[in-house]
Amino acid sequence: MHTIAPELQVAAWLNTAQPLSLRQLRGKVVAVHAFQMLCPGCVSHGIPQAKTIRSNFDEQDVAVIGLHSVFEHHDAMTAKALEAFVHEYRIQFPVAIDRPSPRGAVPMTMAQYQLRGTPTLLVIDRQGRLRLNHFGRADDMQVGALIGQLLAEAPSGAEVHCDDTACSIR
Amino acid sequence: MHTIAPELQVAAWLNTAQPLSLRQLRGKVVAVHAFQMLCPGCVSHGIPQAKTIRSNFDEQDVAVIGLHSVFEHHDAMTAKALEAFVHEYRIQFPVAIDRPSPRGAVPMTMAQYQLRGTPTLLVIDRQGRLRLNHFGRADDMQVGALIGQLLAEAPSGAEVHCDDTACSIR
Amino acid sequence: MHTIAPELQVAAWLNTAQPLSLRQLRGKVVAVHAFQMLCPGCVSHGIPQAKTIRSNFDEQDVAVIGLHSVFEHHDAMTAKALEAFVHEYRIQFPVAIDRPSPRGAVPMTMAQYQLRGTPTLLVIDRQGRLRLNHFGRADDMQVGALIGQLLAEAPSGAEVHCDDTACSIR
Amino acid sequence: MHTIAPELQVAAWLNTAQPLSLRQLRGKVVAVHAFQMLCPGCVSHGIPQAKTIRSNFDEQDVAVIGLHSVFEHHDAMTAKALEAFVHEYRIQFPVAIDRPSPRGAVPMTMAQYQLRGTPTLLVIDRQGRLRLNHFGRADDMQVGALIGQLLAEAPSGAEVHCDDTACSIR
Repeated sequence: MHTIAPELQVAAWLNTAQPLSLRQLRGKVVAVHAFQMLCPGCVSHGIPQAKTIRSNFDEQDVAVIGLHSVFEHHDAMTAKALEAFVHEYRIQFPVAIDRPSPRGAVPMTMAQYQLRGTPTLLVIDRQGRLRLNHFGRADDMQVGALIGQLLAEAPSGAEVHCDDTACSIR
Repeated sequence: MHTIAPELQVAAWLNTAQPLSLRQLRGKVVAVHAFQMLCPGCVSHGIPQAKTIRSNFDEQDVAVIGLHSVFEHHDAMTAKALEAFVHEYRIQFPVAIDRPSPRGAVPMTMAQYQLRGTPTLLVIDRQGRLRLNHFGRADDMQVGALIGQLLAEAPSGAEVHCDDTACSIR
Repeated sequence: MHTIAPELQVAAWLNTAQPLSLRQLRGKVVAVHAFQMLCPGCVSHGIPQAKTIRSNFDEQDVAVIGLHSVFEHHDAMTAKALEAFVHEYRIQFPVAIDRPSPRGAVPMTMAQYQLRGTPTLLVIDRQGRLRLNHFGRADDMQVGALIGQLLAEAPSGAEVHCDDTACSIR
Repeated sequence: MHTIAPELQVAAWLNTAQPLSLRQLRGKVVAVHAFQMLCPGCVSHGIPQAKTIRSNFDEQDVAVIGLHSVFEHHDAMTAKALEAFVHEYRIQFPVAIDRPSPRGAVPMTMAQYQLRGTPTLLVIDRQGRLRLNHFGRADDMQVGALIGQLLAEAPSGAEVHCDDTACSIR
């Protein structure tokens, strides 16, 4: 059983004219790369991998979203700093700033998904279910295999329906 | 339309007690890495990628085969030399020696598949159809995505059969 | 003819109890890595190279200094942000913050040395003379060769003195 | 005290019209990369490093020599196979085939230098003395530093001579 991925809680968006929601992306596979701009593993591995996902799959099939989940050095990793970072590192996909929590250092989406840290890769299937929540370095081929498999699954909302004469996808 | 991958033409096998055939592997996805032991791109990229495929997927689902297709320096890349190479590079999956042609430098499987050179990655689906014939460096994520997609397809010989009461895979 | 390297103009130091000066480092070879914390080439190449210099040579022979020369995104690359960066990237050698100029975006040391951007590697010999001012990616072996050569030169202030009976270094 | 590097014992040379000798290279720094063509660490690290030495230093100052010291898989690593290897891997510097020993698997130069295996990097100074005998992966910067230092030493045969009025190198 896979649970439906809860909606992202976002303070602000970069690289998109309109805010995005997982609900509206239903039907696509969604890869969410949770990162911090001052996290070395995010810079050396996570962000390049997110870019590789973006370049390897069609935007019609796979959405890629950055999620800036700051849980330390809040003074350093401001929205202003993130803008400069996104510019310098040539990040073109939409980036969400995880909504700060009034109750502590860990922002709200990070808390809800119980992320262990950054980088974390979340992969959500066409029906909006969370299929991967991977902390640390994920292997490119494994990530590709999962996305390839999820793309082969019936699109969101589709149901295989069989009656007396035939089966069809609705 | 994808054509059925023609059978490999093999002079000898390494790393397997019994000769393999594509026919008997029907039902699995098969990745064939065509290489030459003295081809730098094969050593730096192709063989590590074949090993990555082997380690990322279950042997029940995906077969990995090396195909030593020697089309130059035949004196240097003998069966004896290949054995030493396979040992030194810790290649554990089965390796087929492409059958030399009586008519020229290009061996028989290489000719039949019209390979442009080495490294080449062939990917064959569960039904034995050739789905990828890629010369040069293939991206790990793309290879993963293709294999993931092919694994999600119905196994070889399986048919979705629906009667009045239900649909099942036979 | 090599000119004496002008003194660094520094707003603040990290990772050192006392401010440093090139004058007091006379006698050692000094490697100054000019960087910006949001410069991708600095993060992927320049800082690892500075760390490699630090680990390959004795502190008695070679001093390594980071120089944070911010000429863009001043709002993002604050002293506070740099502290977090230095912590996260495990930078242990002294880091100088290049003194901002009242007249423009380019800080004062950067202007005086006419740096073209970041990363830049400056290498100063035992006598305080500027021997390398390299913008962009410098090859590890070349950097090693230069430092090795400079180390083989007579220490700062030393003079080879010969009298009737012998030559000595004073 | 550094001992004079014993002369290489060579069955045949590739990439040079005339056989080389350490004696005739006196005055230059000499880097000898001992390798086997089927040794993975030689292919991934040692040979690229030897090429980097070749490209970073002037041939007037530094000689680079490959030494094919086969101590296993003799059937596979023949002179014929080495020729193909040198061609495919674009090795342009002279390569010596270490003279086989009548008494065992280890060839003669390898035995005399007491090499532990391949890859091994030997560095010989301008006066013909062995200054480095490093088995395994050597760091590019360290190798550069050593060569830079050796280049800064007085050329072979040169002596600092001081009389009443001055010191000079003869």
